[in-house]
Amino acid sequence: MTQRMMNFSPGPAALPLQALEEARAELLDFQGTGISILEHSHRGKDYEAVHEEAKSLLRELLQIPSNYRILFMQGGAAAQFALVPMNFLHAGQSADYIMTGVWSEKALGEAKILGQTRIAADTKEEGSYRRVPRAEEIQIDPSAAYAHMTTNNTIYGTQFHYVPESGAVPLIADMSSDIAWKPFDVSKFGLIYAGAQKNLGPAGVTLVIVREDLLERVRSDIPKIFRYSTIAKEDSLQNTAPTFAIYMVRNVLKWLKGQGGLAAMETRNRNKAAMLYDAVDSMSDFYRCPVEKASRSTMNAVFRLPSEELEKRFVAEASARRMVNLKGHRSVGGIRVSLYNAIEPAWVESLVAFMKEFAQTQG
Amino acid sequence: MTQRMMNFSPGPAALPLQALEEARAELLDFQGTGISILEHSHRGKDYEAVHEEAKSLLRELLQIPSNYRILFMQGGAAAQFALVPMNFLHAGQSADYIMTGVWSEKALGEAKILGQTRIAADTKEEGSYRRVPRAEEIQIDPSAAYAHMTTNNTIYGTQFHYVPESGAVPLIADMSSDIAWKPFDVSKFGLIYAGAQKNLGPAGVTLVIVREDLLERVRSDIPKIFRYSTIAKEDSLQNTAPTFAIYMVRNVLKWLKGQGGLAAMETRNRNKAAMLYDAVDSMSDFYRCPVEKASRSTMNAVFRLPSEELEKRFVAEASARRMVNLKGHRSVGGIRVSLYNAIEPAWVESLVAFMKEFAQTQG
Repeated sequence: MTQRMMNFSPGPAALPLQALEEARAELLDFQGTGISILEHSHRGKDYEAVHEEAKSLLRELLQIPSNYRILFMQGGAAAQFALVPMNFLHAGQSADYIMTGVWSEKALGEAKILGQTRIAADTKEEGSYRRVPRAEEIQIDPSAAYAHMTTNNTIYGTQFHYVPESGAVPLIADMSSDIAWKPFDVSKFGLIYAGAQKNLGPAGVTLVIVREDLLERVRSDIPKIFRYSTIAKEDSLQNTAPTFAIYMVRNVLKWLKGQGGLAAMETRNRNKAAMLYDAVDSMSDFYRCPVEKASRSTMNAVFRLPSEELEKRFVAEASARRMVNLKGHRSVGGIRVSLYNAIEPAWVESLVAFMKEFAQTQG
Repeated sequence: MTQRMMNFSPGPAALPLQALEEARAELLDFQGTGISILEHSHRGKDYEAVHEEAKSLLRELLQIPSNYRILFMQGGAAAQFALVPMNFLHAGQSADYIMTGVWSEKALGEAKILGQTRIAADTKEEGSYRRVPRAEEIQIDPSAAYAHMTTNNTIYGTQFHYVPESGAVPLIADMSSDIAWKPFDVSKFGLIYAGAQKNLGPAGVTLVIVREDLLERVRSDIPKIFRYSTIAKEDSLQNTAPTFAIYMVRNVLKWLKGQGGLAAMETRNRNKAAMLYDAVDSMSDFYRCPVEKASRSTMNAVFRLPSEELEKRFVAEASARRMVNLKGHRSVGGIRVSLYNAIEPAWVESLVAFMKEFAQTQG
């Protein structure tokens, strides 16, 4: 077998080796049933145990309060951009959006098609987003149907390090790229959604955590299959669930628990991010992080080199050393190092060593 | 490893062993990349080749004309029940529905929330569906936005053995449970959709085949992510695709091609169905198929035994012989034998032998 790459992809991202090995070991025969998990009925007891275990691990690890429901949906965050206003933006209401990047823009775009919207904060400056807003810059309309935010911005390498105060207005957060990176207070949010393919599992399933009372506000003039209330009522089994993706989430959560849970993840992730940013800052004549320090992301660190030519060479030489998917998003260029839960600290050590070597030889 | 079960599940269904073995062999290292297919970016060249191969195999095997687009979506047929009227049922229009079972009823239910509908045919009699309509019973409104049908009805064991004539009205078909069971004329349909988890792959991806000119009729007042035109324009990569599910579809299609394609499947499937129905008919004092002969499904054969007690024993004894998931849908009871492409003829032989034995000892 080829040696395993150090995969710094922004997503679909590297998965814990343990989660993959578990899947491989039982891929043809799930727990002695003589049937693959890919072939098990979503209504059979074997899959049902996986479904329950995934939910129960989520509730335990993320400390999800009992008045919140855990849903497994499909379509990624992009579907949620549309489903949030479809469900909660009633006629005559307006929804607030906190703008911190392309994903916020896409979420706002879908809401605008369906109803009234309002910008609660916007940090776009000179065509890009170099930071998230400070708390005092966010103005939530107290009559808003909800306030929407993106907690981490993969493209710009920015992240909220606080939860905005939204009063009685339900705060809805796209946490696709930083859910479960550390312990957090679910009760500050009305609804949280996250495509699994960064911190939780493979592509193909979206985690939704929703406060029960919001299910009563769901619009009844939208298709039943798109109502959060339907999914909650049927425990995400209103139709065939993406069983294998949920099974993989379960495997990742088992690994996460074995690592010591979210508190251990926070230490691990902060250490990885510190190593990386320290390297950038200590070689500031060669590497430059465009992000305001208070907004730097622990999940996606972005930086520039003196020229695009050098950036290209950096990516190529790192790749030759098995460190791959370091190219920044096409819209902004530069280097992007994704540091999700499954990324091994040793990979970041290798990368930092390479960064030093590269700066010395090319600087 | 436990001996492999003969899994007659209605779906998620048994997959070809070859497709599973291929996935297992490279699960940790996709084609020497040192990265699992579960971790590959949906925008990288390695996954892209899989995406292209899946589409190209579909076009070849299903003989999809060049004026049709192949889309990979999420949410199963249940999402399509809503997306079809969202996209195509404009204000002031009405849509026709051919009613042949619970799935048609669910599709109609979503459309009714969104606009005007009309029943073009309905074979519900005495609370159940024992047949599909005859051609002359179907009355399509020439001004309908579209006409919707379910080609195979998993619960009742019925199947259309002809394509209804819809004139200029686009015929939209839910083929979830019988797509690719034999060669068929795609050009008779405006749009075809099929959850993959029966004949094409695992749960988590829905195949949509749509005639290009219909993309111009898509409503522009619905969210962008839910427009077929968006998915077509972005080649199903408008956001992160369910990459592993599509990879598995690719593996299943490779197997299908190796078997000789859809013509070979038709022979194989007709033989399996003939074996099964011949057994039922030849022991008609014990087994009874409630379906009108002309409507019998080649994909899901349903039959009854003299009593529910005997049906229970039949399921249990078959299961002890490794023939599993034979229980009929909870809404109708009885026995259901799903005979999708991947079901081996030898499994059906075993089942028929058991049916004879059971009838002799219990009859």
